[in-house]
This record gives sequence, structure tokens and C-alpha cells, in this order.
Amino acid sequence: MRAHTYVVIMAGGIGSRFWPYSRQYRPKQFLDILGIGKSLIRLTFERFSALCEPENILVVTNDAYSTLVQEHLPEIPLSNILTEPDRRNTAPCIAYAAHKIHKKDAQAVLIVAPADHAILQEEKFHQTVAMAVAAAADAPKLITLGIRPHRPETGYGYIQYQREEQKDILKVRAFTEKPDYSTAKSFLESGDYLWNAGLFIWRASTIIREMQEHLPAMHALFSQIQDDLGTDTEQQAINRVYAEVENISIDYGIMEKAEQVYVIPCDFGWSDLGSWASLHEIREKDSDDNVIEGNILTFDTQNCIVQTPSDKLTVVHGLEGYLVTEHENVLLICKKDEEKKFREFVKAVKEQKGEEYL
Amino acid sequence: MRAHTYVVIMAGGIGSRFWPYSRQYRPKQFLDILGIGKSLIRLTFERFSALCEPENILVVTNDAYSTLVQEHLPEIPLSNILTEPDRRNTAPCIAYAAHKIHKKDAQAVLIVAPADHAILQEEKFHQTVAMAVAAAADAPKLITLGIRPHRPETGYGYIQYQREEQKDILKVRAFTEKPDYSTAKSFLESGDYLWNAGLFIWRASTIIREMQEHLPAMHALFSQIQDDLGTDTEQQAINRVYAEVENISIDYGIMEKAEQVYVIPCDFGWSDLGSWASLHEIREKDSDDNVIEGNILTFDTQNCIVQTPSDKLTVVHGLEGYLVTEHENVLLICKKDEEKKFREFVKAVKEQKGEEYL
Repeated sequence: MRAHTYVVIMAGGIGSRFWPYSRQYRPKQFLDILGIGKSLIRLTFERFSALCEPENILVVTNDAYSTLVQEHLPEIPLSNILTEPDRRNTAPCIAYAAHKIHKKDAQAVLIVAPADHAILQEEKFHQTVAMAVAAAADAPKLITLGIRPHRPETGYGYIQYQREEQKDILKVRAFTEKPDYSTAKSFLESGDYLWNAGLFIWRASTIIREMQEHLPAMHALFSQIQDDLGTDTEQQAINRVYAEVENISIDYGIMEKAEQVYVIPCDFGWSDLGSWASLHEIREKDSDDNVIEGNILTFDTQNCIVQTPSDKLTVVHGLEGYLVTEHENVLLICKKDEEKKFREFVKAVKEQKGEEYL
Repeated sequence: MRAHTYVVIMAGGIGSRFWPYSRQYRPKQFLDILGIGKSLIRLTFERFSALCEPENILVVTNDAYSTLVQEHLPEIPLSNILTEPDRRNTAPCIAYAAHKIHKKDAQAVLIVAPADHAILQEEKFHQTVAMAVAAAADAPKLITLGIRPHRPETGYGYIQYQREEQKDILKVRAFTEKPDYSTAKSFLESGDYLWNAGLFIWRASTIIREMQEHLPAMHALFSQIQDDLGTDTEQQAINRVYAEVENISIDYGIMEKAEQVYVIPCDFGWSDLGSWASLHEIREKDSDDNVIEGNILTFDTQNCIVQTPSDKLTVVHGLEGYLVTEHENVLLICKKDEEKKFREFVKAVKEQKGEEYL
């Protein structure tokens, strides 16, 4: 089975939620968000190295970041870095990888995963993924990993499953969009809703067949370039496809429509690291609940993230629930939990100060 | 009169209230605290340049800062920079300058002033000082300038005067130490208390005679080195005097004891710039009451000082009443009005981080 197991790491994201640490030229997946000396994409790669050889790990990323991927993952062959000329959401990205892998190995089972999430309990994760891979190899199932929620989060999509006693892999009843707060609360209380973490397991042949049914135009485009895949004309062919292909997520394009959709309820310490607040949640903290990184002294300061270059001393007094972070040419001091403000900052910086700070 | 008018700028202070902008090797008087491109000592010098020639302006400073004084005031002769080997408060400092000037010019009138205060209404100041100089030249009076208080400040000493109709120069009833809050309030309400700003005008001969009476030991020490003053042995002689001389303020040593003590009530926009809070009071502010210096964007931020190097962008969100200041190797973020905390910061930095940050 191991030889037929493939990992597709989706690493095309940009996003400004970790600005000023994340930048346009160096988005979140390439950052050491956890402060342990390894980028998130590196951690994702190492997490999957237990399940297959580097030759079977592919990364789909934007053209602009392929050099960064090479630097962070020198073990994988250059031909495993699939570069998209434009951002077209997850369905085309997965179609590209599925077709490329399927051409080489018709029995391939794919594990599709975002590059920029954290998973703290790796062994549990490996066991779950192994179970999913075995199940997907056996049958034309679309399997997702659903995270057991522990708060009424309104920032994620949810997966509702059918309750069936003593089964690990459960039939999905519905995918739902991001709920409002009261809906999220009822989801949490009901016990049969899981967070959609964007983790999928299926055979390459299964997902291609589902695309043929539910995304026929997309399927046709990728079918036309079969001869190019794995040759010198691959990139040109992909660029042509991306000029035409629909911009759509795999959830909306396939998962919400397909029949054989299953979910495994999971609890392996997952975080999408979607904000500074989630980073604070997951990171080691001092006795005042502060995440401290750098050469720092705090006084009367609680529940903060303070992250500044260690070649200078930072003294912080009287802050509660703030983020203080300096990276390259930007120092940001703001309330940690007001995520929506971030877009405002970034917009104002772009308009008033210029691209060199983004 | 102008030829006999001398200014003695006292510039020996250290102090950490403007840390990290002020440092041990570069105290407040050498900083551009007002953000106008000139240090406080430079502003003090220029303020007095209207009243006498640079040759008549003397600076008393610590040995460690004499080079800085030369750099900031290149117009004054090197021999006008009087260097103290140790800090002995204001009485010895004034005694040194008075003896040195008196030896050269027995008719000299001295204006004694701190190097590190701000005066916003210079013309009013000049008029007041000119009046004081004329009065001091005429009679053996010790004249101080007292600032009309506008808040019940507990950080200053006060001067109580005798109410006399239609006089500009009033007899002093008492000098008082820093009062507690309720006393300060009653001082403010009574109308006959002024802030002691450390500004004095008197003849050199007058202050020397008063010292002979009230500080006889100090007077004896300086009398013994008359022959050295103005010669190559001056510094050596001064070093000997300072090894023995009493550590005492001019207020406590002379002003509280002498008979002929007068005060001119003043209102010329004075600030001792004793803290970041007083700097905030005096500086130009934006529409949110922020003092902004650097390349800065603020959101929901009021009543702050934000002062960071302009080669980087600083974004501040959600702060009220804070100081954000970066200088060289230190970034400080703290509540602006909690001055007493400053000593705690500086002490902790010294103990835990080392002298290189002080």
C-alpha cells in the first residue's frame, strides 16, 4: 500500500492574517509560526514522511513560491512541485495533482492536505490517516477528516455525519458553510457536526471519476492535457488549462454533491492557525499567559503575544490581550483578538504607505 | 549691563525618566525631546543668546559629558565648560561658576538655569529675565523665577510669596518641599504659591557673600582655590574641592535661609519636561491627542506617544494613554502616566539584561 500512497500538499495560499510576519512574497506556510525552527510546510512534509517516500509527496503552489518550496523541502523531486499560474481555489489544484499522479500510478491513493495547519498529536493523526487510506484503497469513497469541535467557531465550515454505532468511518449527511454564532452553538451541542479541516483521502481514480460527473468542464480540460503531464510541455498545458478553468472549491464542486462521502471524526490537536489568536492558543505560554519570543521583559502584562527581534530589548508594561510583533520593516501593536481589524490595517498600509510593507 | 550679564547652564543631570531615549552616556539635556531638531541644551543656549555673548555663557557639567557639550554648543569657548568630577547637587555647581566668573568680572550678574527645561514663550521669558537682571545688578538680592501653577503638581517644590500690590518682584515667605496632593491643591487655590523652576538671578558677589554666611565650609574650599581658577591647575583644584565639598542643593543651602530672597511670578509656557507625560502635554498632537513621530499608522488609538525609527512602519491599534518608543537597542511600550514604574523597568533591565541597554 505504501508504494501507492501519495500526499498532495496544497501550498498556494497568500493571506495577510499573520502580517507583518507573513508577507506577499513569503506567506504563512513558509513561516516558523510555532516558533520551533521549522516552517509549517516543513512540518507538514515531515508529518507525512512517515506514510510515504518523498518521491510520493507532491506540492501544488503558486508560480511565485516554487523556489521557496524547493528551499523548504529539498528532499522532494523538482517535478513534484506543481506550479499554478493563477489561484483557482482547491478543485483545479486537486484535479491537477490527481491527473498527474493517476497517469503514473492508476492505483494511487491520495492524501490531500493544506500546508499551513498544525497537528499536535502526530501518532493519532498517522493512525487515522492510515485507516482512511486503507478504506479509500478498498472502495470508491471520498473520505474527509472532521475535527471534533470544542467551541462554537464561526470561522469554519462544518460536516454533519450520520450517527452509526461502532463505526469509525461515517457517512456524511451534509457540508455546511460557515455558520452564524447561534447555529455554531447548536452544531456544537448536537454532537454530530465536525469542523471541515480540508483533509481528504481518496483514490486518484475515484476523485477523477467524481469530477467527470460533477465538474465535467474541468474534467474535460484536464483530460485534454493527459499527454503533456510529466513532459516538457506540462507547464504550458497547465497554463492554458488555468486560463479557462472554473474557480471553485473541492467542497462546493464535489463534496456537497457526491454520494460516497465519508468522514472520520478526529481529535488529534488540530489548529488551522488562522490568526494570531489561534497561535496564542496553541503556543507555550509564561505564567502570565503570554507567548514571548525575543529579548523581552514584561510588567503587568497578560494574555499577549510579544515577538520582536532579539538584537534589541523590548520592555512591555500594562498590556492585556495585545499582539506586539516586529518583522523586518514593520512593528505592529494591536488587540490580539480583533482579527477583522487586520484587513483594515493591511488595506490602509497598502493605500497610505506602499507595497514594500506588505 | 549686557557685558556683565553671564549665564550658567547646569547640565550635569543624568536621570532615566526618558529611557530608552535618554541613556547614561547621553542624558536628557542632549536629546531632541521636543522633536524639532535641536537638543534641550541647544535650545537653552539659543534662548540665552539674546541676553549675552557666547563668551559669557558657561556650562557646568559632568566630566563624562563635556565632549557632548562641545558638540552641542560649539560657539562657547572650551574654558566655559566647567566639568565636575562628581555629582554634588546645585550648591557646589553654582559656587564653582560664581567664583570663576567673579574672579574675572566683579560686577557680574549671573542667570542660573537648568539645561533641560522647555520655555515656549521666549519673548516673555526674555523680558522677565531682563527685569530680574536689572534688579539684581542694583541690589544684593537673590531673585528666583516662580512659575504660576495650573495644576496641583506634587512633583515640584513651591515658593510662597508675600502679596504686595503693584510689584513685579515679590519677597519670598517660604520655600517648600514637594507637597502631598491635598497640600498641592490648597497651594493652587491660595494663589500665592509658585513652582520652583530652578531659575536664579543674582550678582556673583551676592551669592558668594550668602555662601560665606550660610555654607561657610563650602565657601572656604572655593576660596582656597582662587589662584587656580582660570589657570592650568583649575581642574585639579576643583577635583580636590569636590572630594570634600558638601552635597547640597542651592534651595536648601541658601534660599531657605537667606534674607534677601525675591521671586518674580512668571507665566511663559514653562515645562521641566520631567516625564513622558509632560512631553505629551507640551508637544503638538494629532486629532486623537497622539504625539506621533516616525512612520506610523494609528487605529482606535488616543492620548499616546508613538515614537519609532522612520525606516520601519509602525502600526498601532487600540491603545489609550500609552507610550511606544524605540531608541537604538530598546523598544518600550508602557502606560504613559505611570511614571513611578520607570524606575522599576530600569532596575530590572540593569539586573536582568545588562548595562548595554541603559
